[in-house]
Amino acid sequence: MFQSFSETARPEQGPPRLAKLREAMAEAGLAGFLVPRADAHQGEYVAACDARLAWLTGFTGSAGFCAVLVEAAGIFVDSRYRVQVKAQVDCDHFTPVDWPETRLGTWLAAHLPAGGTVGFDPWLYTPEQIETVRADLYKSAIRLVPSLNLVDRVWTERPAPPQGAITPWPDRLAGMTHGQKRAQLAETLRAAEQRAAVITLADSLAWLLNVRGTDIPRNPVPQGFAILHDDGHAALFTDPAKLHGETRAHLGDAVTVAPSDAFGPALDGLSGPVRLDKASVPLWVVQRVEAAGISHHWGEDPCIRPKARKTEAEIAATRTAHLRDGAAVCEFLAWFADQAPGTITEIDVVTQLEACRAATGELRDISFDTIAGSGPHGALPHYRVSETSNRTLTDGDLLVLDSGGQYLDGTTDVTRTLPVGDPGAAEREAFTRVLQGMIAISRLRFPKGLAGRDLEAIARYPLWLADLDYGHGTGHGVGVYSCVHEGPQRLSRTSTVPLDPGMILSNEPGYYREGAFGIRIENLVVVEAATPLPGGDKGDRLTFETLTYVPIDRRLIDTDMLSAPERDWLDRYHAACRERLTPLLSPHARDWLERATQTR
Amino acid sequence: MFQSFSETARPEQGPPRLAKLREAMAEAGLAGFLVPRADAHQGEYVAACDARLAWLTGFTGSAGFCAVLVEAAGIFVDSRYRVQVKAQVDCDHFTPVDWPETRLGTWLAAHLPAGGTVGFDPWLYTPEQIETVRADLYKSAIRLVPSLNLVDRVWTERPAPPQGAITPWPDRLAGMTHGQKRAQLAETLRAAEQRAAVITLADSLAWLLNVRGTDIPRNPVPQGFAILHDDGHAALFTDPAKLHGETRAHLGDAVTVAPSDAFGPALDGLSGPVRLDKASVPLWVVQRVEAAGISHHWGEDPCIRPKARKTEAEIAATRTAHLRDGAAVCEFLAWFADQAPGTITEIDVVTQLEACRAATGELRDISFDTIAGSGPHGALPHYRVSETSNRTLTDGDLLVLDSGGQYLDGTTDVTRTLPVGDPGAAEREAFTRVLQGMIAISRLRFPKGLAGRDLEAIARYPLWLADLDYGHGTGHGVGVYSCVHEGPQRLSRTSTVPLDPGMILSNEPGYYREGAFGIRIENLVVVEAATPLPGGDKGDRLTFETLTYVPIDRRLIDTDMLSAPERDWLDRYHAACRERLTPLLSPHARDWLERATQTR
Repeated sequence: MFQSFSETARPEQGPPRLAKLREAMAEAGLAGFLVPRADAHQGEYVAACDARLAWLTGFTGSAGFCAVLVEAAGIFVDSRYRVQVKAQVDCDHFTPVDWPETRLGTWLAAHLPAGGTVGFDPWLYTPEQIETVRADLYKSAIRLVPSLNLVDRVWTERPAPPQGAITPWPDRLAGMTHGQKRAQLAETLRAAEQRAAVITLADSLAWLLNVRGTDIPRNPVPQGFAILHDDGHAALFTDPAKLHGETRAHLGDAVTVAPSDAFGPALDGLSGPVRLDKASVPLWVVQRVEAAGISHHWGEDPCIRPKARKTEAEIAATRTAHLRDGAAVCEFLAWFADQAPGTITEIDVVTQLEACRAATGELRDISFDTIAGSGPHGALPHYRVSETSNRTLTDGDLLVLDSGGQYLDGTTDVTRTLPVGDPGAAEREAFTRVLQGMIAISRLRFPKGLAGRDLEAIARYPLWLADLDYGHGTGHGVGVYSCVHEGPQRLSRTSTVPLDPGMILSNEPGYYREGAFGIRIENLVVVEAATPLPGGDKGDRLTFETLTYVPIDRRLIDTDMLSAPERDWLDRYHAACRERLTPLLSPHARDWLERATQTR
Repeated sequence: MFQSFSETARPEQGPPRLAKLREAMAEAGLAGFLVPRADAHQGEYVAACDARLAWLTGFTGSAGFCAVLVEAAGIFVDSRYRVQVKAQVDCDHFTPVDWPETRLGTWLAAHLPAGGTVGFDPWLYTPEQIETVRADLYKSAIRLVPSLNLVDRVWTERPAPPQGAITPWPDRLAGMTHGQKRAQLAETLRAAEQRAAVITLADSLAWLLNVRGTDIPRNPVPQGFAILHDDGHAALFTDPAKLHGETRAHLGDAVTVAPSDAFGPALDGLSGPVRLDKASVPLWVVQRVEAAGISHHWGEDPCIRPKARKTEAEIAATRTAHLRDGAAVCEFLAWFADQAPGTITEIDVVTQLEACRAATGELRDISFDTIAGSGPHGALPHYRVSETSNRTLTDGDLLVLDSGGQYLDGTTDVTRTLPVGDPGAAEREAFTRVLQGMIAISRLRFPKGLAGRDLEAIARYPLWLADLDYGHGTGHGVGVYSCVHEGPQRLSRTSTVPLDPGMILSNEPGYYREGAFGIRIENLVVVEAATPLPGGDKGDRLTFETLTYVPIDRRLIDTDMLSAPERDWLDRYHAACRERLTPLLSPHARDWLERATQTR
């Protein structure tokens, strides 16, 4: 079982640790110290040794930070975590701050009116992050300075760094060898007159070298740093013990491997200009390069765009993973259909679902902790059930079930909303509107060159007509046996990155009524060049191929609200589910699927 | 009759004028000179004395410029004008350049590889425009320098500046006195710690002082400059002969009037910081202020936002104007319904339509030259019929008819597409999709804070599903007895200005099949706060009130393609047309309206 249900929050541990940190601050002559959730790789998940924010405060969310001053300690969390933070931290000692509404610079200036020196670990912050805070502090007497990590100094039982094995990811799945990738990026560097690029994102490293890792939970990517030279050679810096013989052979002669502490000296030996991504590289790298007198250009990590545009091989692999995963979810749904209201809990749901995925024999990890939010818990888009919060599913509940699997051939992420007993009228109406938005995106064809921001309104329109909406984006990028949240593509008002063929995205509108219920329907889709329609304009058009096949519960659909093309899409989707999944199912699940996909 | 149909283009006049200009360049020691379409007020229309681009080249479009070098003269026009420019200019002497695809800086660098000095009139360019060109030239040896206007030097029969009367615009229509407006903006300036703002846009001037003018065609706004001080006093610089006693009394003691040549000395006497809008102020103003040692802040013209948010009085006035105009259009449509295919021309259409508007007795001007494009002419979104291009309406044609009136109480802009005889199947399908997009915007409710870019996909979705699209924005801002194209609000992918209650916009999706036919349906709408729906989320919602009432031709609608809510919207819209317009119509038009608005 990958998921655990223990209540990790121990709010009482925070205050004594905070006191120790303040002692270290006093010794270092600092008026404040910043403790972010991030590690040096700026990923969504961190290893145990990097869980400094959780260790200090008790808060385990995937984003946020604590600003520790002598008299105050602000814990900054976004709207997803405003309820959770209050349950996990001792609010007598830590003050939750609404972020990004309250900016760090503004808060520091208010709490340190006389000024002072605030330290931060330059491994854990990017140049862009520090520039933003400094810009907000320009009128104050507060100085923000790099420092040794004071949490590490006082965290006596800090775990060792992870030693997860790094293994090859097969070329037949990747569709390109790492030699081809390195050669392509080297050309990009030469065209930009850059001599090298520094890679610090774990999923970029995994993509570039066609490897996967086990350093961090949920994201099968290895931690390390790399330097890619403009001749295509690469140097990987990570504990060499993580690489077995097979991986060494896979990497070959053009990729050298050295321990992490060789990374700094290797930077010193570069000739410029070096490409650095100000949105992802640790500030430490910039300082080191500048100290060595090497020029640098700001530029996006060169792996990000080609990684986002999946190869044909990756898309084919992902299709297979999605059918396997869809069949596993159907096995779960067939079981779920037999459970009477009042007899099972959220933890039972998570356990059974993971068991169905594990039964495929192919599950490497889950893509993220399953969200199984029943009744009012469904209204928390990022709810994670614990032994403390666990709730019995009751007649009239909706269950938001958002989950995914990591398989060697793909990463899945699917949400279905399930009625427990008979759903109410408000629930059915809202569900149908969410479904209309999700279908509208599924049916979309659009001119090449448009970004998430140019498209997203289409998903929200049916909800907007009833004054409903949802507080998250409509879709995030997804990797292939990699991170389930992957940039830069997004279906969101905040994204101006044009969508390109091969990009995988989620399509997941929702609706959340606080204290009552939640709804979300999510399929993954892949952008593809559209076959031109007769009579259509010239010019490249894109469309979405749906990757996820799992029936949508028809008890929640008010069919009268659907237009003819919407009903037609739904019927065709259910027919495709039946056709593709039936061969993969047990007899019991097959019977269930037959009933679940009948056309009304 | 406001509109004329004469073919103004005289391509043969261009070359000798170009030769004279080149002589003046040689005398001035310039390797090039820039001739823009714009005047010092950066409006869409220019007075005869400012039509330098048309005088030099023959090109009469509303945007573009000519870059004259010794060996080449590039005439830069956007996609709207690529056909027109070739008909209007002598292409042996002027080279059409696709703009903005080809940037001016790039073109100059390619045609003046050895460098040189290129002059421009600083009255006719904004700081932002010049910065952009200079940024593109940073690697070249070309210098861009302010100069006397060499066109004015060689244009011997240049008309005198316009002397259009400036008259008060009634407070009862404006909803605010100009004293209230000046006091409100003065507060804005004081809050920004700015001592004054310079106003150079004609519609800002008209709005600020509650006046209207007759200096330029189609836009009833006066040309002049103003300085607004942070105590609410204003100085207006324009020919005092334009203001009669009534206008002087209307302006009162807090607004001084001085001749245009007093503007420069008045700038010299300011104390800073002065707010200047880098997107609209002439560069000349910036040079003058800097030469006088006065500090300035870049900031948007302070009239722009409050002008865009119409008062209740302005909206009420506009509603009246739209009903009057809608009735006039219905009189035209009733006449048009009686004309057999093959019997009338595009000019007949324009003439009859303007006559119907003039018959209201209230028409001050047309809002723009009526677009009456039949058959293939309909595929040119900005087609203007001339005696040369005039075409007889033929069986099977579609007619795109886009027109508007300037009335004391409002500015209208309406497009209807009309079948001549029996429309074809492709025309009906495309028309129905355009209508679906137009209805989707009409029905829209959306959260406050969103901009055109966040919404526009909703209008295009029905077309995109068939690989169709249109090359213009979905909506532009519209003034009240002011400019028919008004910023900053737009329903367009390029607009990130949040929509606010009171903003008037057009809602005009279209479809254009080159060489075959065009379709456009346009209503004006005004943004309003939405009455909350029961069961909806908390938070401010906005919606659009439709201002335009003119029936939509049902012979072009494939009703089977419409959803139930779309059919319902159409029936309710037609019922509203009948109810509101019937009392304003002649008996003949009343009969026509009755038939045109019957529910199928």
